[in-house]
Amino acid sequence: MKRKITLKHIARELDVSISTVSKALKNSPEISKDTREKVQAFARLYNYKPNNIAISLKNKRTRNIGVIIPDIVHHFFTTVFRGIEHYANDRGYNVIVCVSDESFDKEVVNMELLANGSIDGFIMALSAETQQKQDFNHLKELGEQGIPLVLFDRVTSEVACDKVIIDDQAAAQMATQRLIDSGKKRIALFTTESFLNVSAKREAGYRRALEKSGLGVDDNLIIRLPHQFEEETLSAAFFESQEFDAVLCVNEIFAIRAMRIAQELQRDIPGEISFIGFTDGLLSKYANPGLTAIAQHGEEMGRVAAELLIDRVEEEDDLEQELPPYRTCIIPVSLIERESTQLAPSKN
Amino acid sequence: MKRKITLKHIARELDVSISTVSKALKNSPEISKDTREKVQAFARLYNYKPNNIAISLKNKRTRNIGVIIPDIVHHFFTTVFRGIEHYANDRGYNVIVCVSDESFDKEVVNMELLANGSIDGFIMALSAETQQKQDFNHLKELGEQGIPLVLFDRVTSEVACDKVIIDDQAAAQMATQRLIDSGKKRIALFTTESFLNVSAKREAGYRRALEKSGLGVDDNLIIRLPHQFEEETLSAAFFESQEFDAVLCVNEIFAIRAMRIAQELQRDIPGEISFIGFTDGLLSKYANPGLTAIAQHGEEMGRVAAELLIDRVEEEDDLEQELPPYRTCIIPVSLIERESTQLAPSKN
Repeated sequence: MKRKITLKHIARELDVSISTVSKALKNSPEISKDTREKVQAFARLYNYKPNNIAISLKNKRTRNIGVIIPDIVHHFFTTVFRGIEHYANDRGYNVIVCVSDESFDKEVVNMELLANGSIDGFIMALSAETQQKQDFNHLKELGEQGIPLVLFDRVTSEVACDKVIIDDQAAAQMATQRLIDSGKKRIALFTTESFLNVSAKREAGYRRALEKSGLGVDDNLIIRLPHQFEEETLSAAFFESQEFDAVLCVNEIFAIRAMRIAQELQRDIPGEISFIGFTDGLLSKYANPGLTAIAQHGEEMGRVAAELLIDRVEEEDDLEQELPPYRTCIIPVSLIERESTQLAPSKN
Repeated sequence: MKRKITLKHIARELDVSISTVSKALKNSPEISKDTREKVQAFARLYNYKPNNIAISLKNKRTRNIGVIIPDIVHHFFTTVFRGIEHYANDRGYNVIVCVSDESFDKEVVNMELLANGSIDGFIMALSAETQQKQDFNHLKELGEQGIPLVLFDRVTSEVACDKVIIDDQAAAQMATQRLIDSGKKRIALFTTESFLNVSAKREAGYRRALEKSGLGVDDNLIIRLPHQFEEETLSAAFFESQEFDAVLCVNEIFAIRAMRIAQELQRDIPGEISFIGFTDGLLSKYANPGLTAIAQHGEEMGRVAAELLIDRVEEEDDLEQELPPYRTCIIPVSLIERESTQLAPSKN
C-alpha cells in the first residue's frame, strides 16, 4: 500500500501554499532557496511521490478514469457509461465505476476511494441526495487538488468544472409543443420532486410551452412522484379524477407504467391519451405501443464527457500551456416518434 | 480529501513494527508507555485515522470489493451488482466495478487494475471471449496470490473458487416441460453460440425435456444467434419457414424481439405461439403481452456472492482457522407466468 502524502499535506505542514510546494519541488527560481530546500527535504523524508493527485507534476498519469453514477440499473446512466468507456478505451484509458445509489455519503466515500487509488480524473452525475443537500464541498476539494472533473446530466452551477448536459428545458418545451401542435389541449406532466435539477428544468419547459401557446398551466395536471418510484404511487385514481389527453413524463419508467394503467382503463393510446417520455431506452422501444421518446443520446453524452476529461488531463501535463476555461457542452436531443403519439409533422 | 497516513507509515517513521503501532494505538499494555505515547502523539500530529486500508495488519484489508461484469447495459448483471452492493454495504464494504465488455483483454486489464489498487477480493462473471478462449490463467493467479474470488453465473470448472450459479439445465428443462404440459408440440429454442456455458446448459435442459417426453428434438427448431445480437439477425424468415407453437429463449431480449416479429406476422400470442424467456428483467414485465420468464433472481445471486466473498475474506484474517473448502451455491429459479403463455398448472 502506498503512503499518501499529498502536496496539500506538505503545504499544511510547512505553512505555505500548495502552489509554492509544487514550484519548490520543481526547483522553480520563483521560490526562495530556503523554502525550496525545506520543501524538498520534507518530501524526501516522507517519501513523497508525485502522483495523480498532484497534477502539476507531470507524467504520472495512471490512464484510469473514475466514474460515479447514481444508479446502475437505470438504462440512461449505463448507456452514458458505455459511451465513456468506448471513447476512453480508444484513447488508452481504463474506466472504473462506483455507484452512489443516490446517496450523498456513498458519493463522498466512493470519491475518496477512487481518488486514493489511482485515477486521473472523475466523470460524475450527482446523486439525488447531493442535489437535495446542496453540499458540494467534496467536488470543490477535487478542484483544489487539481483533479479534473466532468459533471454530466445532473450538474450544479456551484462547482466550476467541465459539464455535459442536454438542454432539458428546451427539450421538454419542444415535446410539449409537439403535443399541442397535434391538437392536445390538456397535457399532464408526471415528474419527480423538483430538487432534481433536471426535473425542475423539464417542468419549466413544459410550463413555457403551455403558456406560450395560450393554453395555460393547470397545476392539477402535474403529478410529482417520489424519486424511488413505487408501483402503488401512480394509481388509476389520477386517471379517473383528472381529464387529460396527453402525458409528458420526465423518465421512461413513469411513462411505461402510466401507459399500462391507461390500457387497463381501456383508454385508447394515442387517440384518447398520447404519451411522451424522456430517455429513449430499451423499454421505450419494446413497449407496446412503442413509446415516443426524447432521446438524450446517453452514449454520445458519455463520449463527450470522456473527451473533455481526457483532453483536460492531457492538457494539464503540458505545464507551458495555460489551461482552457471550463466548457459546458450541450448534447442535442431528438424526438423518436413511435405509436404512443400521433404528432403533426415537426415545424422545424 | 483526507491525508492518508497509514499504520505502515507511522511504523516506518518511528522505526517500530506495524503491529507495535497498532497495539500502541489501542493502548495495549504489551507496549511500553514510552512507545505508546510516541505513537499516539505522532498519530495525532498527522491526523491519523484508523481506516480501511489497515484495519488488520496481518492482511491489510481494504474493505473494498472489486466486481467485473461483462456488460453494464444487461439488466441481469446490473441487478446482480445491486445485490452485491446492498449486502456489501451492510457489512461495511465498498464496491468498485469494471466492465469487461465481453473481451478477454479487458477482463485481464481490469483485474490487474483493481488488484493493484486496494481490494480484498473479486466477484466476477466471465466474459464471452474468456469462455471461448478457455484461458483462465489470470484467475488462477489470483488464487496463487491469495486473493479471494467468487464467480457467478458464467463460471468455469477450471478455476477453484467459490461460485454462485443457477441450475441452468434444470431451469430450461422445467420451462420446456411446462410448455409440453400445456399441449405445445413443436418448441423452438433461440440461443447463442454454445461457447457460452450457460447457453449450452440451457440447450441441454431443453433437449432433455423433449427427449423425456417422447417428442424428440428437431434441430431445425434451434436457432443460434450471435452473442452481440443485431436487429436483422432474427428475421421473419425463420417464422415463415418453420412450424412451431412455442419458443424458449435463453435471454429476455431475444424473446422480446421474437414476440415483436410474431406480432407483425399477425400470429396470436400465446394461442398460436407461446414465449418463455430467461432473466425476467424490466422488459419482460413491461412487454405487451407480458413475457413469461425464468427469474434468475439476480439480486439474490449478488447477495450470496458477496456473502461468500466477505466470509472468505474475513475467514482469511483468522490465521488460526483452516479455510473451508470452496462452495458452489445454486440459486433456485422460478417461473413468472405472464400473458405470453397459457400454462397448465404446475405439477409440483
